[in-house]
Amino acid sequence: MEQSQLSALFNPKSIAIIGASPDDQKIGGRPLSYLQKYGYEGVIYPVNPKYEEMNGLTCYPDIKAVKAPIDLAIIAVPKAVVLQTLKKCIDQQVRSVIIFSAGFAEIDEEGEKLQDEISQLAKQNNVRVLGPNCLGMFNVGKGVYGTFSTIIEDEKPLKSNIGFVSQSGAFGSHVFTLARQHNIGFSYFVATGNECDVDVADCLEFLANDPDTDVIACYLEGTKVGDKLIRALKLARENGKPVIALKVGRTSVGMKAALSHTGSLVGADEVFDTVFRQYGVYRAETIEEFLDVTYAASKLPFPKGNRVAVFTVSGGVGILLADQLSANGMTLPETPKQVKEKLREILPIAGVQNPIDTTAQISYMPTLLEDFMHSVLSSGEYDSALVFLGFAGLKLDSLQDRISTLKTMQERFKDIPQIVVTINSQESRKMFSDAGICVIEDPSRAVTVSKALHYFANREEAVSEETLLPEKQDIFGPATLLTEYGSKKILKQFGVPITEEKLAKTAEEAIQFANEIGYPIVLKGMSPQILHKTEKGLVVLKLKDNEEVRSEFERLKAIIAETEGAEFEGVLVQEMLNQESVEMVVGSKKDPIFGQIVMVGMGGIYIELLKDVSMRKAPVSSREAAKMINELQASPILRSYRGKPPYDVAGLSSLISQFSHFIVTYEDMLSEIDLNPVMVFPQGQGIKVADGLMTLEKQVIHS
Amino acid sequence: MEQSQLSALFNPKSIAIIGASPDDQKIGGRPLSYLQKYGYEGVIYPVNPKYEEMNGLTCYPDIKAVKAPIDLAIIAVPKAVVLQTLKKCIDQQVRSVIIFSAGFAEIDEEGEKLQDEISQLAKQNNVRVLGPNCLGMFNVGKGVYGTFSTIIEDEKPLKSNIGFVSQSGAFGSHVFTLARQHNIGFSYFVATGNECDVDVADCLEFLANDPDTDVIACYLEGTKVGDKLIRALKLARENGKPVIALKVGRTSVGMKAALSHTGSLVGADEVFDTVFRQYGVYRAETIEEFLDVTYAASKLPFPKGNRVAVFTVSGGVGILLADQLSANGMTLPETPKQVKEKLREILPIAGVQNPIDTTAQISYMPTLLEDFMHSVLSSGEYDSALVFLGFAGLKLDSLQDRISTLKTMQERFKDIPQIVVTINSQESRKMFSDAGICVIEDPSRAVTVSKALHYFANREEAVSEETLLPEKQDIFGPATLLTEYGSKKILKQFGVPITEEKLAKTAEEAIQFANEIGYPIVLKGMSPQILHKTEKGLVVLKLKDNEEVRSEFERLKAIIAETEGAEFEGVLVQEMLNQESVEMVVGSKKDPIFGQIVMVGMGGIYIELLKDVSMRKAPVSSREAAKMINELQASPILRSYRGKPPYDVAGLSSLISQFSHFIVTYEDMLSEIDLNPVMVFPQGQGIKVADGLMTLEKQVIHS
Repeated sequence: MEQSQLSALFNPKSIAIIGASPDDQKIGGRPLSYLQKYGYEGVIYPVNPKYEEMNGLTCYPDIKAVKAPIDLAIIAVPKAVVLQTLKKCIDQQVRSVIIFSAGFAEIDEEGEKLQDEISQLAKQNNVRVLGPNCLGMFNVGKGVYGTFSTIIEDEKPLKSNIGFVSQSGAFGSHVFTLARQHNIGFSYFVATGNECDVDVADCLEFLANDPDTDVIACYLEGTKVGDKLIRALKLARENGKPVIALKVGRTSVGMKAALSHTGSLVGADEVFDTVFRQYGVYRAETIEEFLDVTYAASKLPFPKGNRVAVFTVSGGVGILLADQLSANGMTLPETPKQVKEKLREILPIAGVQNPIDTTAQISYMPTLLEDFMHSVLSSGEYDSALVFLGFAGLKLDSLQDRISTLKTMQERFKDIPQIVVTINSQESRKMFSDAGICVIEDPSRAVTVSKALHYFANREEAVSEETLLPEKQDIFGPATLLTEYGSKKILKQFGVPITEEKLAKTAEEAIQFANEIGYPIVLKGMSPQILHKTEKGLVVLKLKDNEEVRSEFERLKAIIAETEGAEFEGVLVQEMLNQESVEMVVGSKKDPIFGQIVMVGMGGIYIELLKDVSMRKAPVSSREAAKMINELQASPILRSYRGKPPYDVAGLSSLISQFSHFIVTYEDMLSEIDLNPVMVFPQGQGIKVADGLMTLEKQVIHS
Repeated sequence: MEQSQLSALFNPKSIAIIGASPDDQKIGGRPLSYLQKYGYEGVIYPVNPKYEEMNGLTCYPDIKAVKAPIDLAIIAVPKAVVLQTLKKCIDQQVRSVIIFSAGFAEIDEEGEKLQDEISQLAKQNNVRVLGPNCLGMFNVGKGVYGTFSTIIEDEKPLKSNIGFVSQSGAFGSHVFTLARQHNIGFSYFVATGNECDVDVADCLEFLANDPDTDVIACYLEGTKVGDKLIRALKLARENGKPVIALKVGRTSVGMKAALSHTGSLVGADEVFDTVFRQYGVYRAETIEEFLDVTYAASKLPFPKGNRVAVFTVSGGVGILLADQLSANGMTLPETPKQVKEKLREILPIAGVQNPIDTTAQISYMPTLLEDFMHSVLSSGEYDSALVFLGFAGLKLDSLQDRISTLKTMQERFKDIPQIVVTINSQESRKMFSDAGICVIEDPSRAVTVSKALHYFANREEAVSEETLLPEKQDIFGPATLLTEYGSKKILKQFGVPITEEKLAKTAEEAIQFANEIGYPIVLKGMSPQILHKTEKGLVVLKLKDNEEVRSEFERLKAIIAETEGAEFEGVLVQEMLNQESVEMVVGSKKDPIFGQIVMVGMGGIYIELLKDVSMRKAPVSSREAAKMINELQASPILRSYRGKPPYDVAGLSSLISQFSHFIVTYEDMLSEIDLNPVMVFPQGQGIKVADGLMTLEKQVIHS
């Protein structure tokens, strides 16, 4: 339903332009001009009371005068009359609307209120609205130009299989122009503006379903609709479409700038990062990377593995490529012996070891490149090829030869992505483009592309994670912060292994429990108001007998009694863990955009100083949890390290998975949980949560 | 002396071309053609027995026929006659020679021998030889073209203040061509080929002294002359010339490729990295970065601090820039309040907070950019400016306005480096270039440039490190590996604090020493053949009385006795350290190229798993050592971390400095030293080396 309205927006059969103008320098003139000159085949209804006819079309005084169904209305009128115009569109049963006009939420509170009204009208009447304050969109294949952008005024945009959504018009325009300079086109270009209704996730979902789009590029500043975004990303993955995202606001400085730019919620960047990786999105850091990777993904197959054959006219660049490929997880397997011999026969001075150096002889021996590439690639030992041709792109007289060879190779080795690197001129770019060859202008950028293709080839399969969430029960009391005792009691109900422990209200009880558990014993004073027990002196270890338990019980109780505002919950009598173990931390936090996030790290300074943490949007399977552990820099410590036994990674993985399901079940109630430390014992001996703290959402109302 | 010969090579008053040809497609024809068409003002002597006249010049049958002093002879003859040609040059007292011919060390052993002969002849006769197997050099200012490269056949190279040395001809050609495309010229271009005499360090030294060169760019694969390279880098720094290096062979894969390419010693990459940082060289990772940084350094002043003002036509790119600048150590201070108000007056819809968003209005308000830049930069709150203009470079009609503004700003704020970012065409590049404006084509690349300028501004001053090395004594015995006892005894002589300890040969002695030192005590069995004491069970801690010392002494002695080939040196009786401390590791290794390198890291997995190590070429001052410590990721642990006291960083710094002087003094004898652990006590309480191992060079012959 929503999506069919979106197709009215992106692929309308009829378009009304409200505020149309015959002047193609005016905001209402440009879409009309583009639609007419770039071959839109649907019906256009210019609306402007000042004209009866416009550019050979009947012009209507008012949208109400159009007595025909309208798929899309473009609103190019002053802010003051936007709302009434929209209402007329709704009366007219227009299916979708683009609002160019600015002056809404991006300006002031009044604008925000007006925008909210638009948003509500749209939702109530099932009209999809793109904007306001937006550059609009275009659909190159169908000649739909719902935009006033000047980026397409000189030339008709090129068509390709790349759909591009941008949360910034200026950013989108820049990327479009850069792409145009490199002969790269798009299927769709959408700038989402203020996103009062249609948002970036809607557009991604549309492109994920669109048959003309194979690759999706997306510029993001933030989103309010985490779940919807994830749904769209999952859909793209299911449909085999790579998504490349450039998201800004990585640092606190950038985030501050993003806040002042968009005025909207930005969200923790590392959570975006996590979500991108989890759903197979490639995150580009720079504009060049964004465009290079998008372009390559739209042209080339994904490699079957990480084995790269490098062909180079410069030994030096060959070394550079070898360095950077291997630093990015690719390998350069040795040239097979027989192939080496063959290459030597062809050219004795060649560097026959991968990276393969054709030397400058490539200019004098017309078949050298083909002979070399054919010999090497037909060995079956390589999954992709990188061909560095120096400045061949500037030598137009010999370039055609080179391009013929490369085209032949591409046809002969269809499954092997082949990336060509050369400095180009405008002419040579077009020659490569016409030949369907992926050319990149810098070796290091080609390495990034190679890494990205490999990333897409290795994205997780879109497994349908049948999530078995525990049944939700009323397990939390009225407090917003649970003590170690309260937190662990709840976790225990869900099968999480915790230390053996009991809460004693009196010294007598404490002694009884200590004897049941067995000495030595740990005592911890519990008060919901005291977060940092150790600093308050509320933890005592290694108590050996009843006498010690009695006196320490009283001492702990007294400390709490003396602390202002602190209630005494009791004293926790806990087993003393003496086994060989590694201390890990498992935790959760609730991201305002994506919800419950599960984290794991090694205890102590690993998390604090070295930021050695791995996270995922919850829930995760045990298998995914094992991957999280593996991503930690310190993870070798959990394996057989320095002669120590391997630790129970399976137990830890299973805890993380269980825990992640728990936090999703109580998503709305939980704010943050910190299980610290989680003791991981040697393999087969499991794990135990030794301490933990749960913070609940304040607004939870208990039934 | 050597350098004056180099000036004969780089700036010759007379040039003989042996193997000269009137055909400018021949290897011996090109230099003649270039010299003539690009305005060489010295004397040219073509040498070729087949001609009496060549291109209007007298041609000589033999170099001996030239009866005049020759500064430079270019040898462009077949390999077989190179040696005899060189000998004739020597007889003729030619001062320098370039050998284009290939087929020497890069091919086979025979070639290597021939090359060695050339090398010896050069040194014996004080003739400087560039090559063989080299593309040659050119000096644009003086029109000296000692090259057969085709990269300059179409156009005369542009002149600038950038000197460029490349160890690879093909790499150099590629960079030259890319630079040419961006209107970037050079003072000198040198490809060093096989470096049989003139090497990359010679060229750097020449450029460091050359008045026409302000910036030095260098492509490196390796060097055999570490000290000479360091000397040249120091000289460049003293003369205030930034050096930008692109060194390949960073990874083991790349290093292998480099070995097979150059056939020469490559050296540990992290040591190159260390040396570069230590001597203020900027290391570029990619070709684009190499050229961008070199070019910017040749055009712009260095900023006085890290405060950047960003002007942008796209809010999105502004955020991207804010992210990347801050991730690279730059700050974006808030726009001062009064300036904000002024900007708002000029353009109410502008984003007045830094990054400052001019919006697309910049196209409609001719003075907007100037008004904004002037207001912001004259506040004195910014050290550099970054101006993102989107695709203004493709809009030639309005570009001239933009360029005038930028030129005015550059003149008005001479001390503030201003980097402009826009997509360019060939035409706009030239316009920026003619106006003397530094333009970069991608925002992220501009950030890298900004970081690099800041790096150069903050290079260490070229302090004359008056190194006080300890007097060299004969302190090592005949062994190549010293035990903990032997190693620490030597260090102690040089004032390094070590644990209190004595070597006992008998149990009685051990008991006596234990009582002198005081219980509890540590015993360690010493044998030069047993490296890993702990694994062999040769370390016992916390011995409490004479009885324990006696029995443990015997047990340790027995373990050594039972180990095949192990000599018993004694049992080390050592104080038991119980003080609060942090365990660090200090060590040295001898790099084959740069000599003694000193290292520091935190003990345990920090070094092993996390590779958290800091190193320098030795010796270092205490101040430099403190910086090394600060560079460690784990260094906060040494400061007041988690309520613990700060540790004795001053003591550790002083140890590192002392130790670094020690290893330099015994440079030739020492192979590797590992002081592990070094116990660092709370501030004011010093440090102690608790264990250590010294490996000596095998070839040391003792007097």
